Amino acid sequence: MSEVFTYGIRVRYGECDPQGIVFNANWLAYFDVVITELWRELIGDYSAMIDDGADMMVAEAGIRFRGPARFDDVIDFELSVTRLGETALSTRIEASVDGRPAAEGTMRHVFVEPGTNAKRSIPENIREALRPLLAAEEPARA
Amino acid sequence: MSEVFTYGIRVRYGECDPQGIVFNANWLAYFDVVITELWRELIGDYSAMIDDGADMMVAEAGIRFRGPARFDDVIDFELSVTRLGETALSTRIEASVDGRPAAEGTMRHVFVEPGTNAKRSIPENIREALRPLLAAEEPARA
Amino acid sequence: MSEVFTYGIRVRYGECDPQGIVFNANWLAYFDVVITELWRELIGDYSAMIDDGADMMVAEAGIRFRGPARFDDVIDFELSVTRLGETALSTRIEASVDGRPAAEGTMRHVFVEPGTNAKRSIPENIREALRPLLAAEEPARA
Amino acid sequence: MSEVFTYGIRVRYGECDPQGIVFNANWLAYFDVVITELWRELIGDYSAMIDDGADMMVAEAGIRFRGPARFDDVIDFELSVTRLGETALSTRIEASVDGRPAAEGTMRHVFVEPGTNAKRSIPENIREALRPLLAAEEPARA
Repeated sequence: MSEVFTYGIRVRYGECDPQGIVFNANWLAYFDVVITELWRELIGDYSAMIDDGADMMVAEAGIRFRGPARFDDVIDFELSVTRLGETALSTRIEASVDGRPAAEGTMRHVFVEPGTNAKRSIPENIREALRPLLAAEEPARA
Repeated sequence: MSEVFTYGIRVRYGECDPQGIVFNANWLAYFDVVITELWRELIGDYSAMIDDGADMMVAEAGIRFRGPARFDDVIDFELSVTRLGETALSTRIEASVDGRPAAEGTMRHVFVEPGTNAKRSIPENIREALRPLLAAEEPARA
Repeated sequence: MSEVFTYGIRVRYGECDPQGIVFNANWLAYFDVVITELWRELIGDYSAMIDDGADMMVAEAGIRFRGPARFDDVIDFELSVTRLGETALSTRIEASVDGRPAAEGTMRHVFVEPGTNAKRSIPENIREALRPLLAAEEPARA
Repeated sequence: MSEVFTYGIRVRYGECDPQGIVFNANWLAYFDVVITELWRELIGDYSAMIDDGADMMVAEAGIRFRGPARFDDVIDFELSVTRLGETALSTRIEASVDGRPAAEGTMRHVFVEPGTNAKRSIPENIREALRPLLAAEEPARA
């Protein structure tokens, strides 16, 4: 059985637009925060990873809007890993407000060498730390 | 033969992150500007459309990163329409810097009634204005 | 003796610029969050205040940068009230990271009637709630 | 007689908040763009300056709000130099929309050595380029 990583973010006033809802681009910024907090909980200091010779870049991101999130709402994010490839990590994020679906996101990060940004394999300790989040129905492929 | 709408945006310093490249979320903000400018050129005042009883909301957005865009770069955006549905507009945006691919985006907007946000059909004048941008290989479907 | 309101905000990656530090404009966004959280703790739901016929607008803001704040730093904010006028609230915010000064801010908010944005006096319950934060050396003036 | 540098920025939808006006923090981001464009017109490539051993950091910023700026408004900025010190540059920015005052800003930038961020004197070519913008009533002081 796979686990999910959960994290809550409270919507800031300046992140909302004249329609009174979170401006669409800010959702990707939220996803980035969720990934950062996932790292903090499961893997450790992001800078330490860079010092060890691995960095991540976003290769793809997608979002589907399901319902509004407004100023002062706490958005609940649930992240699962959909693929742990040789060099790439795919994640899926479900966002809700008070139990109502707000957005669904997908991200694909690739691991690179800091400086050159050449692709590199996912460090073994990171692979191990993320494995429990790997959703059962989507097995890892290279 | 279909046409594309082109628009250039110069990258602001504060839109770039410590990797020295445009922070991923800001690309969606750029796409929003491209849609705004498309409206200005082909359709007219966005507020007038709202006064006439039609507004748009982003239903889906996706982005694939192809190469970096940095501070002061001018990003060239090319937008085409991939679907003109009954209530939804799908667009595709290709972004490049000095001819090098930077990102590819897709967006789906739905038309709604201002206030209630109930779905409504695309106003006929808007449909007509966007039709030349409809890419030939993806015919309109309801 | 006056009190201060304290609140901590962790710096997000996308809030930092190519110099690796928080982009200057984002500090004002942080200040806005601090004010929101001050409201939550001392006064209550911001929306309730609006329903009761009072809203706030920023009239002035200033910031002096003292030292860097970087990705993943937790910035500690200390807010005090420097003036409780008839229609205006002046605050002072000191920000630090690990005890090192990072920034000093000042803000002046004016109370307005929602909708018309006409100036109005500070509601009495808000005045009472904020009084303990009023720094002794700067007495309230109309 | 002193000159002013003028530049126009069109307000993006995502820069506006639920009050329908430009969110306060975004004004500082606009000021940053105005400084960048001032450089482009009067001094040249910002990166070239860094390669030549000089960078700038914002030391202080202030803003006073005079009137609203809304989605799709073009904000006209007028920048003048209020002080050309030994290591610091002070500027004043007046912003208006259709001739109506919207905001007044002040910024103080300090020149530093890239990398160490140690203060350094303003390069002579930059001093010369900025001198025509120096407002007559505020003479340069070290």
